[in-house]
This record gives sequence, C-alpha cells and structure tokens, in this order.
Amino acid sequence: MNIPKTDKPRIVVIGGGFGGISFIKKMNRAKVQVVLFDRHNYHTFQPLLYQVSTAGLEPDSIAYPLRKIFRERDDFHFRMAEVEEVDPEKNEIHTSIGSLSFDYLVIATGTRTNFFNNKGIQENGMPMKTIPQALNMRSLILQNIEEADITDDPEEKRQLLNFVIVGGGPTGVELAGALAEFRKGILENDYPQLRIEDMRVHLIEGGDRVLAPMSKQSSNKALKFLEGLGVEVHLNSLVKDYDGTTVTLEDGRTSKAKTFIWAAGVTGSPVRGIKANSLIERSNRYVVDSFNRIEGYEHLFALGDVAKMVTEQFPEGHPQVAQPAIQQGKRLGRNFRRMLKGKEMKPFKYFDKGTMATIGRNKAVVDIKNINFGGAFAWFVWMFVHLWFLVGFRNRVITFFNWTYNYINYDRAARLIIRPFKKN
Amino acid sequence: MNIPKTDKPRIVVIGGGFGGISFIKKMNRAKVQVVLFDRHNYHTFQPLLYQVSTAGLEPDSIAYPLRKIFRERDDFHFRMAEVEEVDPEKNEIHTSIGSLSFDYLVIATGTRTNFFNNKGIQENGMPMKTIPQALNMRSLILQNIEEADITDDPEEKRQLLNFVIVGGGPTGVELAGALAEFRKGILENDYPQLRIEDMRVHLIEGGDRVLAPMSKQSSNKALKFLEGLGVEVHLNSLVKDYDGTTVTLEDGRTSKAKTFIWAAGVTGSPVRGIKANSLIERSNRYVVDSFNRIEGYEHLFALGDVAKMVTEQFPEGHPQVAQPAIQQGKRLGRNFRRMLKGKEMKPFKYFDKGTMATIGRNKAVVDIKNINFGGAFAWFVWMFVHLWFLVGFRNRVITFFNWTYNYINYDRAARLIIRPFKKN
Repeated sequence: MNIPKTDKPRIVVIGGGFGGISFIKKMNRAKVQVVLFDRHNYHTFQPLLYQVSTAGLEPDSIAYPLRKIFRERDDFHFRMAEVEEVDPEKNEIHTSIGSLSFDYLVIATGTRTNFFNNKGIQENGMPMKTIPQALNMRSLILQNIEEADITDDPEEKRQLLNFVIVGGGPTGVELAGALAEFRKGILENDYPQLRIEDMRVHLIEGGDRVLAPMSKQSSNKALKFLEGLGVEVHLNSLVKDYDGTTVTLEDGRTSKAKTFIWAAGVTGSPVRGIKANSLIERSNRYVVDSFNRIEGYEHLFALGDVAKMVTEQFPEGHPQVAQPAIQQGKRLGRNFRRMLKGKEMKPFKYFDKGTMATIGRNKAVVDIKNINFGGAFAWFVWMFVHLWFLVGFRNRVITFFNWTYNYINYDRAARLIIRPFKKN
Repeated sequence: MNIPKTDKPRIVVIGGGFGGISFIKKMNRAKVQVVLFDRHNYHTFQPLLYQVSTAGLEPDSIAYPLRKIFRERDDFHFRMAEVEEVDPEKNEIHTSIGSLSFDYLVIATGTRTNFFNNKGIQENGMPMKTIPQALNMRSLILQNIEEADITDDPEEKRQLLNFVIVGGGPTGVELAGALAEFRKGILENDYPQLRIEDMRVHLIEGGDRVLAPMSKQSSNKALKFLEGLGVEVHLNSLVKDYDGTTVTLEDGRTSKAKTFIWAAGVTGSPVRGIKANSLIERSNRYVVDSFNRIEGYEHLFALGDVAKMVTEQFPEGHPQVAQPAIQQGKRLGRNFRRMLKGKEMKPFKYFDKGTMATIGRNKAVVDIKNINFGGAFAWFVWMFVHLWFLVGFRNRVITFFNWTYNYINYDRAARLIIRPFKKN
C-alpha cells in the first residue's frame, strides 16, 4: 500500500464510527501517522438511522465524509477497504487492497446485526445497521404501501399494511413510533383510498418491558406513548421464524406481514487473526483491560461496541451505544499521547450521561442519574443532544430544518423510492 | 385497477415530469378524475441532476413525492407503475399493474438517453437522466478517485483520474465545470497524496462550439470559463467508441479513461400502441397540433419533450427543455377546462424566457431575448431561477443552504459512496 513510512509511529485504526473518530481527534497534535480503514467513505450517525428508514431525514444529513473530518490533520491517511485479517505476530494487517504494517492497532469495528443463526429471519427480515440497509427499509415500507393501494385483494392488502418490528430496545421503539406517525400524517393525507386503521404496527419484545436498559418509569411511559400512537406492543413474546409472509412466535401465535424489521440484537464484528481466548465467543467482543488493550497483546487495542471491558458496574462490559465508544476513544487518544511522552496511561472511567429514546413528536423519555422524565421537554432534550453530537455544521442545520419542517407539517418529507428494494 | 369510475371524465396522465405536473396543477378546480402514472413515486428536477452526480446536492432535495404535490386535489389517483401500451381504439392503457380505461390520455413521458445504437457506449458509458443514474455517477467518480489514491501504478492512476464527458450541451458543460471545481476544492484538501494536475477533465463536443442553442457570445464565454477552470475542451470531435477504458474518436485519436459520461443526446420515450405515422422515428416524438393533440387522434395528447409541435420558429419542434413542457402543460390544462365548458381551445404559443447555463462558482451565461451576459451576476440569476422553479419549500431551503455552504467552504458536501457502483 502506497503509504509512506515515516519515523513517526504508525497507528492503524479500523472503523470510522464513534470510537474510531473520537480516538483520532484526540490524537490531533500527537507526532504519529494515522491510517484509518473503513468500508464506507463516510461516518454514519447511527442513532438517527431509524429516521432515514422512515423517510424523516435524507441519508446525506446523517453521514459525513471521513476524509473531511480529518482534512486538517498532518500525516493522516484514509483507505476505503475491507480489513480481512490481523497478523499480531508480524504487526501487519491484510486488507482487500493489500497489506500494511503497524506499530499500534486500534480495532473499532462496532457491531453487526445478530440473527442468532435463524436463516428465515436472516433472509427475509430487514436489518438496520448501515445507511444502505436503512434505505432498503425505506424503499420496502413505501413500496408495500403503494402496493396496498393498488391491490383489490383484502388479504394481500392486510399483509402489505401489517408492519412487524422485533426488539423493544431504542431502535425498535423509535421505528415503531415513527411508523405510527407515518400512518397518521401521511397515509391519511396522501392515500385517500387506504383507511388509516388498515395499517397496523406491531412491536414484539421478548422481555417484560420495552427499553429494558432504562428505568422502569421510562419503560412504562414509553409503553404508554406507543400505545397512544396505536402501536400494538407484545411483551414476553419471542419470535421463532419469519418466512417472508408469516411471523411465527415461540408460543405458536402467527401473523402475516410483508414488512418484518429485525432490531432484536447485535453482535460484535471482530477481525480475524486475534487469538481465540481474547475474544468472547457469545458476544464477539474482545476482552480489554482498563486501557482498552486487548488481553494478551501489547500493541493491540479495541474500542467501543467490539470491546468488553469488565468493571464492577458493568460485569458484561459497557452498553453497546455511542457514549462508551466516544469516551473510550477520547481516553485512549489521551493515553497514547501520554505513552508517547513516556508517561503512564490512565485507566478508563465511564461517565454516565444518561439514556434517552424518542417515541414520536413531543414524546420522549430521558433518564439522567436517578432522575427520569418524559414528554415534550424530554423530546426537546433528545433533539438538542442529537443535533449536538451530529458531525458537521451542515448536517446539523439540515437535520434541524427537516425536523422543524416535518414537525410543522406532520410530514416525513424524504418519501422517495430511489432504489426499489428487490424482495425475495 | 381499483380506481372508482365516476361520472366525471377520466384523464390519464403518463409521466410526472414538468409537463405532467404543470398540466394537472392547472386542472385543479376542473370536474375531472385524474390518474397519474409514473415509474417513480417522485418528481425529478432534472436541471439540477448534475449537482447530484457531482456531490453538490443530496438526491432528496431535487426530488419531490408526486402524491404530495396533489394531496389537496379531489379525485386524484397516483399509480407507481410502468405503462406498457396504449390501445387508442378501446381508449385503454395496459400497465405493469393492470389495464385502465380513459376518456382522455396525456402522454408526458419525456426523453431517455440516446446512445445511437452504440453498444460499447451503452454498456460502459454513464448516462444521467434519472436520480439512480446520477447516484451511480457520483459513486463511480468518488470510487475512481479513492482507487487512484491507492494505486502504485502510474498508468492506472492516470486512467482513474481522467474524466471524459461527451456532449457540449448544458448538461455536459455543467458536469465538466463541477468536476473541475471538485478537483480544486476537494482533491487539493482531502487527497494529499494526489496531485491536482493528475486529475484531468475533458469535454468532447461534435460541433464547433459548446452550448450550441445559445448565442455565440455565450458559447464563447462558456468556453473561456471552462478553460479557465482547466477543462480540456475538444470541439469538432466525434466519439466513435468506448470499451470501458479506451475512448476512440472518429479521427482516430484515443485516450484512456475510467470515467466516461455520455451527455450527447436524448430521444423521446414514447409508449407503444400509437400508429406509426404519428411518431417521428428519428426523434421518437409524437406529431402534435397546436393543441398538443396527437395527429390522427381525438382524445390523445402529448406534452413536452416527447411531443413535436412544428411552428415557423421551431420547424423541428420546441427545444427539449423544461420551459416548453411547463408552458404546454399549463396551456393544455386551461384548454381542457375550456373544452369541458364547451368553449374552443386556444393554440399553444411559446414564450421564450431565455436560456442559461452555469459553469462554476460566479460563472454562468444567460441569454434573454437579444441580451446576453455572463459572470457572477448571471450566476446569481441562474441560482435564483432554479430555486424558484424547484418544487416545494423544503427543497428550496435545503438547496439554498447547500449552495451557500458549498460556496463558502469550496466544498461539495454530499461526497458519499452509499451504493458503490459495480463496474463491468
């Protein structure tokens, strides 16, 4: 690979998500060479992906070119490529565009959808971890509604307008709320031949409450908000299979639906080559110490979702959301600078900024420390925080404008089937 | 098709471009049923497609949901489908979702790219008539630059950074200018390992000047602007073939390029079923009278690019751009209302509002009547007019913001390879 080797140490970073970019940003003035690999040429702001799937935001406003983030950094190199394997003995990585040696490696590859080896769901369900996947979902939702408007067959219409979302975490809850609002704002106005009660939104959750990581109060409020919007929430319900039409639950219940969204689990997406006992098989996360160093290695680090740092508070590792990744990235960046100056590293300490989820307009829930609140104020806090963390001034303005516009007009303006989704 | 037949006459419109939507808008208060067919669920603002291909605008800001445009109209029906054939004897159309009878039919299907039966160009060249095509072009341009940054082979790098655009009309000129600015604003900042002079932009035109439909003065100014931006303009040059790597001209000259954009011609996209002598074979346009009625038919009309209305001023039919389509649509709408009231139709008269094209920041040319001017003021006029005609308040604001942002930052912010383009 044509990257000049200088006398500065070379740090290779895999993954331009929250962890990777927070780390590189902190290294800004450090005398190192940084090479960033990602399979996309942009950073994805994952917390707002569900708004792309439901036509609330255009994809371009939650994506940001990776090269642009670091255009001011000296000796920074971006490579759009797939990293295939790490060779920790030779300090080398093998990628789809060749091999490269490194002095330090930071793995920040995040997670991918976990289908739990269920073939039917994997083939027929819609995951949502990337922008192309979110756009496929947007196309499918809009296509199914268009088709429902065309058909004369009441059973076909029922299936086309039956939306099943599996997983009562933030993603599932936010998707269900957005779809319920789609029905109210758009089906009502733009599809005069469809009746609003023909469109049904189901949220299926295995546990006994939605938003399980949040406080009980917030879970209850979210459930009420969902039900108020007309979402049919099924708690304590496990999905067994989906064949493209029929959803089957473990308890034998079935339902027919042409849209089946799988938001029920993620698993780490590690890179091949790291020795097996440093990787937790069940969750696909690397065991790291309090400096994010992968167990058993000196020069290999892992960050964020793909890292499992066991602490007293988090015996199963930190939650796989943005904040731990951002904070670990920053800490590791600072630690690298300390290390390069010969100082000792400082252990990572997670600062819990709280959790939040939005269900619909004026409807969100927020947990901060032991306080929790919900409703319109929570919704404003949610919007403010998401705009704040969105990368780039342009994306913030466009997102803010879209939200204002959609709010005033009860609209979701990005209702475009640009690349129709090819169903099985 | 489940569209209720009422006692009002049914007008079927094929195509939601400028002609189709202008027509339906004018019919707003008329007592008719309107059924609009389009293969996309959105209207495309074609004059700004080139900005999507060159990462200046996101696709969502130049597209607008067709259902939304007409949500206030009574008895309006949209169907996303492909119209396959017209049966003018039975007053019926056959589509991908079934058949439908009509009282009146308005064909406003526009044009598609004309490859002049050249297989090599059709298979390997990039056309740009739709949003998916523009997005493919955006991906290919960005992919080729990423690959150029990776390769060690100077010949491969040369081919990857050699951009060939064929056709010196507004599309070709605007694309060439935008690519030249991409080099200056982005290659320089975000690709430190690439030299700006390694990227070359060629514009190939068969005639002796660019922007042939405009005044000589404007053509000359545009040529100077292009050359000032570093575009290599080749006049009086006809392309013979392109095999995916080598561009061959009629005079035997060759050049190797991995990006080959075909903006050298369009042809009408008529619907099957109309009798042969009402369709001009060479241009695929319907012969219409001054009321846009297709020759030999009473209830069939054609509008805009796919219609050929011969007048003294335009013996070859009106130019295939937005204005004639918009004006014919409006005229036909008014005429329908007159006809339904038993009044006589009025013949179409084209009002020439002028022509304009933009080459780059502060660089545009405008012809209005016998006046022509170029430069920064022309550029502001160009922007103002395009914002004015863009459908929808939201799209106008987002486009305006993007232009301002890109202007201040010398950026093209939508540089995202969302769906990589698969090369042959």
